[in-house]
Formats: sequence, structure tokens, C-alpha cells
Amino acid sequence: MKEIIIKLPDWLNKECKQKTFSNDTEKMEFVINLAKINIENGGGPFGAAIFSENGKLISCGVNLVLQNRLSVLHAEIVAFSIAQAKLNTYDLSKIGYFELFSSSEPCAMCLGACLWSGIKRIVFGAPSSYAREIGFDEGPVFKESWDYLRNKGIKVEGGLLKEKALNILYLYKNRNGVIY
Amino acid sequence: MKEIIIKLPDWLNKECKQKTFSNDTEKMEFVINLAKINIENGGGPFGAAIFSENGKLISCGVNLVLQNRLSVLHAEIVAFSIAQAKLNTYDLSKIGYFELFSSSEPCAMCLGACLWSGIKRIVFGAPSSYAREIGFDEGPVFKESWDYLRNKGIKVEGGLLKEKALNILYLYKNRNGVIY
Repeated sequence: MKEIIIKLPDWLNKECKQKTFSNDTEKMEFVINLAKINIENGGGPFGAAIFSENGKLISCGVNLVLQNRLSVLHAEIVAFSIAQAKLNTYDLSKIGYFELFSSSEPCAMCLGACLWSGIKRIVFGAPSSYAREIGFDEGPVFKESWDYLRNKGIKVEGGLLKEKALNILYLYKNRNGVIY
Repeated sequence: MKEIIIKLPDWLNKECKQKTFSNDTEKMEFVINLAKINIENGGGPFGAAIFSENGKLISCGVNLVLQNRLSVLHAEIVAFSIAQAKLNTYDLSKIGYFELFSSSEPCAMCLGACLWSGIKRIVFGAPSSYAREIGFDEGPVFKESWDYLRNKGIKVEGGLLKEKALNILYLYKNRNGVIY
């Protein structure tokens, strides 16, 4: 194998146009909507995006585990990877201030990935207890895990529009979406 | 962006030929050697591989963060992704028993990735304290994190050939390898 190719859906490119957002609520609405569109396109119920300090949209991610048959492709990982590919750096903190918005609390893997990505702020919607409610395992995420990131200078805020984010999780469950 | 392309080095393809290993020590020697070759080719000091139950080599991974400028490309993530691409499944446990060997203890991200990959056993060489010794951050990995995986039925064993694995970390440090 010479390369691993991760295919990004056409609709994701269309959503990820040049846009600037003026506040956190708008950004969270946006990533929750990405999760909704992903469900409608056969994917998992999770959306994420990276924004620059001035609210400019840098990259969009959705869970592409089913579509690409790769377990690592959670929404956050996709968003980090597109941002890093676009900006040509493995460490976003080297070139500026960037933040992650995610429709659900990052799982154990994505929490670790946040550290290596170089983002400086994480805002999530549904807490992991909500994702667990519909059957997703979130892995070993403890209060101490988030404290570790905070001690490294990353701001972490959760629960923004959490009921709206929960509705998307239930939309998926009610359509009998695959739990993985 | 239509796709994310992860380039795999030619030498990695050559190392990852059809091979069968008869014991754990041989497998660990193999992944430590991958880490060594990766350093010689400008990469980070980490190697990993996936084996099937009968000791057959399924995939090889090395840290490709620097070469691909993507922070997610730790050796374990590369090994999981190649195995899943080859075997056409996002969950290796659906098609058999597979194990991960890694030259160093998985970081917080890779620990979470182990859960979603579907492997059933993890064997690592150098404990994370060794990687920290040369300056790598390993993220929030606690005793409880590994316990979580064990409770999910994954066997976890560490410290095999740890002095040999430590030598590779120091080889990297002494060459003034980039710490990220």
C-alpha cells in the first residue's frame, strides 16, 4: 500500500465554504447541522469544525468511520486533519490561535488528539453521557483528563446547545443508525 | 478538498512483507526496528504493527507526523488504518483476533484508538515514562485508562524489551530529533 486515501463527501466541501461566524452559538449551530447532514448521508451523528481567532471557518469534520471503513475517522480527527493539510502544519499552535467546536464531547481518542493538534480552545455540545445514552462508548475520559488539557493551556467548555445536540443523537438512534 | 492522502514510505511497504512471527519477543524486535528505520528516514522514534492470531503480520505503522504534517499519524494509528483498509473493516474484532505491538506505550489518543480499532491485545515496549524522559508528552493516561480497556476484554502488557526500546528513543534524542 503506497497511501491511505480518506474520501471526503462532496456535501462537506460545499458546507465548508468561506464563512465567518460572530459568536459561539452560531458555531455550535453549524457543527450540529453538519452532524444532521451526515446522518442523512449515511454517516454517524457527529460534527466538528475548526475556527480561527476571528471566527473564520477553517475546516469541517464529520464522522466518516462507516463511509471510509476506518475507525479513527471521528469528526474531530477529520476536522484537525483537513485544517492541518490546508495550513501545511502538524501543529496549529505554531501558526496562530485555533479552536475546535464539536457537537458532542470528544471521546478518549479525540481528547488526546486535541492536545497534539495545537488548538487552544474546545467547545462541545452534548456531554458524553448523552452519547452513551444512545449506546456509543466514549472510552476512558475522566475529569482528570480534561484537567490535563486545561493545565496545558487549552480552554474547555461543554454543554452549549446540548439539548439540540441530543436531538441529533436521537434522530440517529430512531433511524436505527449503526452504533460503533 | 476532496480527499486526505496519507503517503506511506516505500521502505515501510518493503518491511511489511508476508511474514509470520513465532513469539512476542520477535514481534517486539520487529516494531523496535521499524522505529529505528523511521528515525533514519527523518521520522519519529515509534513503530507498531498488527498481527493475526497465528502470528501473521497484517500491517506496519511508524510515526508519520513530520513526513505528512498531520498530528494524528502516530505509529499505532497508521498500523490500525492500514490493517482496516487492507481487510476492509472499521472494526477488526468483527473478522477475527488481532493484536497490536508498539515500541512505546500508546499515548492518550492511541489508547482510545485501540478501543475503536477492534484489537484484542496490546503489547508495548518502553513505558510512557521513557518517552517523557526524552521530552515527548504522552497526554492524560492513567492506571484507570488501561483498566477501562481491560474491562472491555482487551489484554494489555507493557515493558517487553523496554531497554532496547529506550535505546531507540535516545538514538532519536541524541540526533536532536524534533520533539512534538
